[in-house]
Amino acid sequence: MLFQIEMSVQFPVGFDMAEADRIKATEKAYSHSLQQSGEWRHIWRKAGLYANTSIFDVASNERLHEILMGLPLYPFMTLSVTPLCRHPSSIRDDDS
Amino acid sequence: MLFQIEMSVQFPVGFDMAEADRIKATEKAYSHSLQQSGEWRHIWRKAGLYANTSIFDVASNERLHEILMGLPLYPFMTLSVTPLCRHPSSIRDDDS
Amino acid sequence: MLFQIEMSVQFPVGFDMAEADRIKATEKAYSHSLQQSGEWRHIWRKAGLYANTSIFDVASNERLHEILMGLPLYPFMTLSVTPLCRHPSSIRDDDS
Amino acid sequence: MLFQIEMSVQFPVGFDMAEADRIKATEKAYSHSLQQSGEWRHIWRKAGLYANTSIFDVASNERLHEILMGLPLYPFMTLSVTPLCRHPSSIRDDDS
Amino acid sequence: MLFQIEMSVQFPVGFDMAEADRIKATEKAYSHSLQQSGEWRHIWRKAGLYANTSIFDVASNERLHEILMGLPLYPFMTLSVTPLCRHPSSIRDDDS
Amino acid sequence: MLFQIEMSVQFPVGFDMAEADRIKATEKAYSHSLQQSGEWRHIWRKAGLYANTSIFDVASNERLHEILMGLPLYPFMTLSVTPLCRHPSSIRDDDS
Amino acid sequence: MLFQIEMSVQFPVGFDMAEADRIKATEKAYSHSLQQSGEWRHIWRKAGLYANTSIFDVASNERLHEILMGLPLYPFMTLSVTPLCRHPSSIRDDDS
Amino acid sequence: MLFQIEMSVQFPVGFDMAEADRIKATEKAYSHSLQQSGEWRHIWRKAGLYANTSIFDVASNERLHEILMGLPLYPFMTLSVTPLCRHPSSIRDDDS
Amino acid sequence: MLFQIEMSVQFPVGFDMAEADRIKATEKAYSHSLQQSGEWRHIWRKAGLYANTSIFDVASNERLHEILMGLPLYPFMTLSVTPLCRHPSSIRDDDS
Amino acid sequence: MLFQIEMSVQFPVGFDMAEADRIKATEKAYSHSLQQSGEWRHIWRKAGLYANTSIFDVASNERLHEILMGLPLYPFMTLSVTPLCRHPSSIRDDDS
Repeated sequence: MLFQIEMSVQFPVGFDMAEADRIKATEKAYSHSLQQSGEWRHIWRKAGLYANTSIFDVASNERLHEILMGLPLYPFMTLSVTPLCRHPSSIRDDDS
Repeated sequence: MLFQIEMSVQFPVGFDMAEADRIKATEKAYSHSLQQSGEWRHIWRKAGLYANTSIFDVASNERLHEILMGLPLYPFMTLSVTPLCRHPSSIRDDDS
Repeated sequence: MLFQIEMSVQFPVGFDMAEADRIKATEKAYSHSLQQSGEWRHIWRKAGLYANTSIFDVASNERLHEILMGLPLYPFMTLSVTPLCRHPSSIRDDDS
Repeated sequence: MLFQIEMSVQFPVGFDMAEADRIKATEKAYSHSLQQSGEWRHIWRKAGLYANTSIFDVASNERLHEILMGLPLYPFMTLSVTPLCRHPSSIRDDDS
Repeated sequence: MLFQIEMSVQFPVGFDMAEADRIKATEKAYSHSLQQSGEWRHIWRKAGLYANTSIFDVASNERLHEILMGLPLYPFMTLSVTPLCRHPSSIRDDDS
Repeated sequence: MLFQIEMSVQFPVGFDMAEADRIKATEKAYSHSLQQSGEWRHIWRKAGLYANTSIFDVASNERLHEILMGLPLYPFMTLSVTPLCRHPSSIRDDDS
Repeated sequence: MLFQIEMSVQFPVGFDMAEADRIKATEKAYSHSLQQSGEWRHIWRKAGLYANTSIFDVASNERLHEILMGLPLYPFMTLSVTPLCRHPSSIRDDDS
Repeated sequence: MLFQIEMSVQFPVGFDMAEADRIKATEKAYSHSLQQSGEWRHIWRKAGLYANTSIFDVASNERLHEILMGLPLYPFMTLSVTPLCRHPSSIRDDDS
Repeated sequence: MLFQIEMSVQFPVGFDMAEADRIKATEKAYSHSLQQSGEWRHIWRKAGLYANTSIFDVASNERLHEILMGLPLYPFMTLSVTPLCRHPSSIRDDDS
Repeated sequence: MLFQIEMSVQFPVGFDMAEADRIKATEKAYSHSLQQSGEWRHIWRKAGLYANTSIFDVASNERLHEILMGLPLYPFMTLSVTPLCRHPSSIRDDDS
């Protein structure tokens, strides 16, 4: 099942930069692993913002919750969750 | 260049259904043509809503404008436009 | 899979009341059928409003879309869709 | 009487994790006790968010207030309160 | 049980004024009857607006729903519903 | 003259509880005194929230300002101010 | 007593222009009369908008209500009402 | 040229009160000076709020910027800026 | 003096297209004339929307009002008005 | 390609002023360099606010992202990003 997740990240002013870099590196590895397994289908940056739009393909709402709660950047994020379906106008096999 | 377009459609109560069906059929053909040319990269339905999230890959802002203004359903739509970039964490070649 | 759907209904001023009653009767039958099949798990009225909070338990986002688009009152509704999970603090078997 | 309560939890960045865990454990016990007494009728997690949708069945607005103010996580919560009624379309005995 | 109801009324431009006056007269009689029975405890006008703030004292959420749905002006109203309790600082007996 | 004041209170996480209790006690005494003088006509708690809806009856906007600025909890409050009038449908003498 | 009133006017598309002009002329005369009596203290246009910011000086909330409800353009207006006081920093006698 | 400026002030909880008083005194002197020069035409308090509505009459947008940036309370303020014109219905010479 | 004006246009569904085209042609001529006189300094389309961002350079708020009220599309527009100043970081002579 | 960027800056109360001045100086140099290269086409101050409206002309969304993320004031900014096109009504060569 497909979900659109919009993530926006904000560190408090004065947050330790080395710690931020460490968390971001962990986040990147976490994302790679889920992209390789196929559950994190797409990720795009929003131009000019510390934010992304992602598409997840997961077995259930529970699995989606587990993945998002595990994001190393989760405590610094604002998230929105939108369930998606294959669109009847889509001609692209991997959009479902 | 990549853009995330969120489209939401609403026909006024009492709008002629045959006319609505005709416009939707034209919209579908229009979308197919742009998907085949590669400019309309993805389209997903928002579950439970008459709305979609789409990803366009176009040569310029001008081309994006031309495509969206040409949507047969445009007069019935509310749209948002978000410029995207390839995300440095993406491992997927066709996300750029 | 569980979803929370908030539905709010508004007929335009001057809408034919006999027609409205006919649509509401169809809606009630439609809801009964889905409650009996187990897909429409709960429905509560919001006190003082022409609105309800419902819980659906469906096989997929696609099935949710199909059900909601089939609501006879859909053209008169504003809807929100929130995917839910069983809560780890729940002690009630049928909350999952 | 039925109420829909939406709870969203946020700890400040840097809040002591052991203390947070202690509060969450107290919250869980508090919730279990109220579920067993039948006043906290349902609780569902919002997928991907530190938030829940709950249904309470209480004798009065005063009792609702007393229960919510007693939530160990209350100082970290944003809440909304919506009074509900049995829906005339409901076929489920325990939805009232 | 106490509820704060905020009502705001708007007739569409061009609505028949004689019909509006007839509905308002019915509304006034309806309100008087409920004030006399004690269920509609207070009603104040918002200065400069076609709107009021009211306090209801009803036996249940269901009774509140029944009363509000019966308002002759309901089809022209926007409403908000807030459950209230006696305030521990109140010294006034009839505020509960 | 009548005013509807909505007050919502929030102490920062970690605020000294003994100090909060001291301020609340002062607030209660302040409220009692104004209720006894008749200027603070009604106060109701919003169920489940640290918030109230109050009705003031004061000689002028200036007196209202003086009273609200004197609230011991004012630095922790968000307030809204709505001027009210007697409603022509009111049958209750003390609603003006 | 002083009040700040923000008025914004919108005629529906297609509204009869001669009728609109007639209403605006009545509005202007109504405003002049209240300015001469001293109750409508100031009126300024918002540049580029069909809207104004006005200051009223009236004996009571009731008088304010009566004046605003009597505005010939009222059915086409959106209004906000803010009670004001003389500011302690003001050096201008007629600002109170 | 005329501008409507809405200013709302908020000191963080725990801000040093002597320092706040010192800034307020400087603000008052600054306001007096600009009122005497005629650039700060009106200032009214919003009843019950730490906020004001002011009218400025300045030679240019640049001068407005200079004045507002110089407000001693600026770092604690939220501001809105609305350009005004003389209203054709105004009968008061000093409203332009 | 500089102003940023954001204009968004919406014709009602079913509005006569020939009439709309006639108004748009008049609008274009009106805009050209003001660009040539130097008062309408810049106009850019918002990609994908029937909307523009414009910069005006006018002698006064009154002149701005006169220009905007004269827009042939004004009855179909939503506008926002923001006064601008030359930015001290600008190196471009014609940005003031 | 053209983009409208709205930037609003806020330093936390108590932020070191010397540090703030240092960051602002770096920002100014950064802006100058991008204006000279032609990528930062326009910058205007919003009168009365610590905010600006800017027009960028960049080769791609990626370049826009790179520029904005490099702003020395970025950690203290709120930004919005709107893709623009040349407007067909524009008569000015450098508006494209």
